[in-house]
Amino acid sequence: MEQRKISRAVISRLPRYYRYLGDLLEAGVERISSNDLSKKMQVTASQIRQDLNNFGGFGQQGYGYNVKYLYTEIGKILGLDKTHNFIIIGAGNLGQALANYAAFERSGFILKSLFDVNPRFEGVAIRGIPVRMMDELVDFLKENEIEIAALTIPKSKAVEVADILVENGIKAIWNFAHTDLDLPDDVVVESVHLSDSLMTLSYNVSQRREGLTEDEE
Amino acid sequence: MEQRKISRAVISRLPRYYRYLGDLLEAGVERISSNDLSKKMQVTASQIRQDLNNFGGFGQQGYGYNVKYLYTEIGKILGLDKTHNFIIIGAGNLGQALANYAAFERSGFILKSLFDVNPRFEGVAIRGIPVRMMDELVDFLKENEIEIAALTIPKSKAVEVADILVENGIKAIWNFAHTDLDLPDDVVVESVHLSDSLMTLSYNVSQRREGLTEDEE
Repeated sequence: MEQRKISRAVISRLPRYYRYLGDLLEAGVERISSNDLSKKMQVTASQIRQDLNNFGGFGQQGYGYNVKYLYTEIGKILGLDKTHNFIIIGAGNLGQALANYAAFERSGFILKSLFDVNPRFEGVAIRGIPVRMMDELVDFLKENEIEIAALTIPKSKAVEVADILVENGIKAIWNFAHTDLDLPDDVVVESVHLSDSLMTLSYNVSQRREGLTEDEE
Repeated sequence: MEQRKISRAVISRLPRYYRYLGDLLEAGVERISSNDLSKKMQVTASQIRQDLNNFGGFGQQGYGYNVKYLYTEIGKILGLDKTHNFIIIGAGNLGQALANYAAFERSGFILKSLFDVNPRFEGVAIRGIPVRMMDELVDFLKENEIEIAALTIPKSKAVEVADILVENGIKAIWNFAHTDLDLPDDVVVESVHLSDSLMTLSYNVSQRREGLTEDEE
C-alpha cells in the first residue's frame, strides 16, 4: 500500500469514518456519495473528499464511494487488518467494562489477560479470560507477545506500572489513569481522560446556562 | 467575571491545565512560571501564556502564576464552582466505574441515581446511590433537578433513550454509546468513543511497526 504522510487531523477523523462506514455496511448500503455521507456525519462534503483523497482513488466523481472498499481500506490504514494482543492492568469496573466489550475482538484486539493487585480477583475470569496477580506480570510478558496494555488503575500507581510495562516490551499504552505518562518516544500512548471530558461538558453546560451561545464551526 | 469569546482550541486545553494545576496544588507548589509549567505539560511556554492570557491577568512578568488562583479561576470557567446533578443510564461495568469515581463529586458533579433495565439491579445501590429501573426515569426527572445524564448503554438503545432524556429536561449528555447523537442545539453532547480511541492507538502502533517515524508536533 502506498504510504504517505497523513496529517494528525486526518488520522484523528479516520475512526469516525470507519464507524459510520461500518454502520452503513450493516445497513446494507453499498455506495454513498460524499454529500450523503456529509449529511450523516455533519462534516462538509469537501472535508470528506479532502480527507479521503489522502488515501487515493476511493471515490469516483458522480458515482460515490464503495462503502465496503472504503471501510476495508480505512481499516487497513488503522491497522485493523492485523491482530493486536493486549492486556488490561486493573480488573476493577473500568477494566471489566473494557474486557466485556466484545467489539474490540472483532476489530482484531485480542485480550490475553487482566492483571490486578487485589487478591479477590485471584482465579476469576472475565469472558473466560483470566485475571492474574500483578506479581505474574513480568513473566507473562516474557512468555507472550503482547503489544498493547490498557491501564485502568489509579494515577498513584500508573507511572510505576507504565515503566514496568515498557521495560518488558510493551509498545503501546491505552491510558485511563488520571495522569499523563512520560514514556520513551517509541512507545505509543493514547490517553482517555474521563474527567477532562466531563469538564468540557461542564464548561459547555455553564456557557448555555449563562445564555451565551456557542458557534458550531 | 469578564466574559469573552474563547476559542474551542483553548477550551479543549483547559481541563488539562486544571489537572496539572491541581497536582501542583496537592504538591504544595504556590507559584509556577510559564517555563516550568511548559516543561511539565510538554506544551510551549508561549502557548501557555497565550492560552492563559484569554482570561486576563493571572500571571505577572518574571513572577509566575499563582497556582491556587489560576486553579480556582480555571475551575470557575469550567463551571466547577457550581454543582451539577447527574444520573447514569446503564448500571453495567462502565456505569459503575463512573459511579465509583469519587473525584467527580469533589468537582461538583453529584450523582443522584443510576438507571438500568436489568432487574438484577433492582434494589442495588452503588456508593449508597440507588439503581432505579428505567420505567422510573421520567418521574424521577420530573421530581429532581438533573442537568447531566451519562449514557453507558449499547448503541441500539442510545438514540431512543437520549430523546426521552431531552424531552424531560436534560441539558447535557455524556455519551459513551458507540454512536453519535443528533440532538437539539440547546443540548450539550460530549462523547467518549472508546473504540475510536483504541483505533487511533492501533494506527500509531501500526505506523511504528512499519518503521515509519511520526513527528510529534
